[in-house]
Amino acid sequence: MSEENVVYIGNKPVMNYVLAVVTQMNGGVSEVMLKARGRAISRAVDVAEIVRNKFIPEVQLGSIEISTEEIQNAEGSNSNVSAIEIQLNK
Amino acid sequence: MSEENVVYIGNKPVMNYVLAVVTQMNGGVSEVMLKARGRAISRAVDVAEIVRNKFIPEVQLGSIEISTEEIQNAEGSNSNVSAIEIQLNK
Repeated sequence: MSEENVVYIGNKPVMNYVLAVVTQMNGGVSEVMLKARGRAISRAVDVAEIVRNKFIPEVQLGSIEISTEEIQNAEGSNSNVSAIEIQLNK
Repeated sequence: MSEENVVYIGNKPVMNYVLAVVTQMNGGVSEVMLKARGRAISRAVDVAEIVRNKFIPEVQLGSIEISTEEIQNAEGSNSNVSAIEIQLNK
């Protein structure tokens, strides 16, 4: 999967990410991967559900995977953060 | 699956839920379902990852499902909230 089919979910309003997914899929992309870490995980689930239920009913959920990523904070020490990847297929 | 194998993830500290899962599994339960809604979804992923990576390495992830639930707020109107179910198997 090319990098352009990945939508990274951060702290912006949920509709920003919904629009990004809908735009990609309406432009012909058949598979979009949502990726989020930490507290944005809840928002990634919201994006998947809103796209499916409000915008593109034919979108189906693909694999949903969770994992732990190690990130380095500003002080240079490492901490673990949970991550999720949600695959959407049209 | 009986109801006692479900751990509902709320707003308490994440280790409370980790302890609940570890206690159930050490007591002989082989399958625990984590359920969370809204912002607690991120915490549910944290619980699953911490149980797997720090406490019971033989736990495997089962199905991960996301959905939308309709809840009634204090004023009596309905709103939608995302939900997740994460299955843990030992």
